[in-house]
Amino acid sequence: MFDYKLLSALVTVVEQGGFERAAQVLGLSQSAVSQRIKLLEARVGQPVLLREVPPQATEIGRRLLNHVQQVRLLERDLQGQVPELDENRQPERLRIALNADSLSTWWGEAVAQFCADHQILLDHVVEDQAVGLKRMRAGDVAACVCAAERPLAGARSTFLGSMRYLALASPAFLARHFGDGVKADGLARAPAIVFGPDDYLQHRYLAALGIGEGFNFHLCPSSEGFVKLLLSDLGWGMVPELQVREELDSGRLVELQAGLRIDVPLYWHHWRNGGELLGQLTRHLARTAGKWLVPGPA
Amino acid sequence: MFDYKLLSALVTVVEQGGFERAAQVLGLSQSAVSQRIKLLEARVGQPVLLREVPPQATEIGRRLLNHVQQVRLLERDLQGQVPELDENRQPERLRIALNADSLSTWWGEAVAQFCADHQILLDHVVEDQAVGLKRMRAGDVAACVCAAERPLAGARSTFLGSMRYLALASPAFLARHFGDGVKADGLARAPAIVFGPDDYLQHRYLAALGIGEGFNFHLCPSSEGFVKLLLSDLGWGMVPELQVREELDSGRLVELQAGLRIDVPLYWHHWRNGGELLGQLTRHLARTAGKWLVPGPA
Repeated sequence: MFDYKLLSALVTVVEQGGFERAAQVLGLSQSAVSQRIKLLEARVGQPVLLREVPPQATEIGRRLLNHVQQVRLLERDLQGQVPELDENRQPERLRIALNADSLSTWWGEAVAQFCADHQILLDHVVEDQAVGLKRMRAGDVAACVCAAERPLAGARSTFLGSMRYLALASPAFLARHFGDGVKADGLARAPAIVFGPDDYLQHRYLAALGIGEGFNFHLCPSSEGFVKLLLSDLGWGMVPELQVREELDSGRLVELQAGLRIDVPLYWHHWRNGGELLGQLTRHLARTAGKWLVPGPA
Repeated sequence: MFDYKLLSALVTVVEQGGFERAAQVLGLSQSAVSQRIKLLEARVGQPVLLREVPPQATEIGRRLLNHVQQVRLLERDLQGQVPELDENRQPERLRIALNADSLSTWWGEAVAQFCADHQILLDHVVEDQAVGLKRMRAGDVAACVCAAERPLAGARSTFLGSMRYLALASPAFLARHFGDGVKADGLARAPAIVFGPDDYLQHRYLAALGIGEGFNFHLCPSSEGFVKLLLSDLGWGMVPELQVREELDSGRLVELQAGLRIDVPLYWHHWRNGGELLGQLTRHLARTAGKWLVPGPA
């Protein structure tokens, strides 16, 4: 079997963000922690950590971290049956990739009680909804929320519901750029706001209006910043309805064209052998996500 | 001189997120764009683009992009004097690294009018306030907002003001974990929320209370998600006062200890030879940032 003393040193250095704090948590000297990491690297024949501040796991390091996480989940199941195995049980860490818009809107409310009940700590990794599965394939996360339906080999996917996106701008922006109505040539010139290079929602909206060529845009990789830029009259953009109910009610943001919306389906992907905890979280999400997400298209 | 026809193909592919859209924007066939990129790579002797969807610039590619951006800023200055040089002037793109909390709060309002007046499109790159300078050093951005004062060689730094952070949690979280008052041993056990591996604000807060060892935390790399997790009773964490005025007024979030705050200074770093536009933006920010940021410590 692997030497879990060494693996646990790696996990602690990464979780605590440094050798000094890892040593405190493990009750070891800093040089003992460092020694364990070096021994681990000698065994796997390559670096597991980049010695940055804070230390970052290499690709092989991330695979080891993911393995330890899966082992911990299995241990947890066993502890449920044999509680005396580990008296000083630490809260479990679960690493989950999800799109920024979920994390900014419904996610916290959906998982809060579950985390408190099961003593779970969450490591959230933000990925655009189109690319979250990459993280799972890389062995970097235990589960992910993303727009792709097809599960990876060894994993399952569950439809949670769709996020509804509206094309919004401030009244001042609309007046400046679309004084005589929202038309195709104006839309191609008025600046849009795009979350990042993986965000094609604005392209899809324009395509639905028959606008295929390039357009001007600001890049803003922050959900809250995105809305702030809209409110500051900097551009138009696609925003989850969940995130801007108040701005819509007060009229601070308005739709470019009433009724033209994009629903993005969200799927929960998780490893099939991820242990009972992950199974419970899956059932919890499938049961509750409908409070925030709309039903179609699935 | 460099062949700007080739460089401009590179810039357009990256800005438009693909060869097909770049070809539309440049009015070329897709294979002509692809040919120009290959020629550029033959000249520099290594790949400038990773052929992913969307294409990503390699490190050398990013340096070329940054060079083109600087050249464009200089061209812009010249066009101010000789307007007939380029009739079909495109809006200028300015690539700026800043901390997520600035982008989520004051930044949009501070730059909106300036961008509209000068026809600028912004590419925001989010970096923790401690590491934004890395991006400048890598030649990846024209300017950055970060916590470090010392400018890079060839750059200048200007103090903008400080963001004030409060340690906050929901009343329900406080009641659950600190029924008999906020004390050191409780704080070490109650889960915190940490933005990412570069976020040491929670550590600094605990250190100020004499708590030096490790603590439990969720990771949440989203400013708005961070506040959502606080509101869902998942943990306590340091949040910019600017971001939660409403939650503080309504009592949905409360301070752990009244009066113990952390002020993080923010500096504007920009290349000295960045052209007149960057100089104007610098003066604009220095003049207006005080509306949102607190004066000390500088």
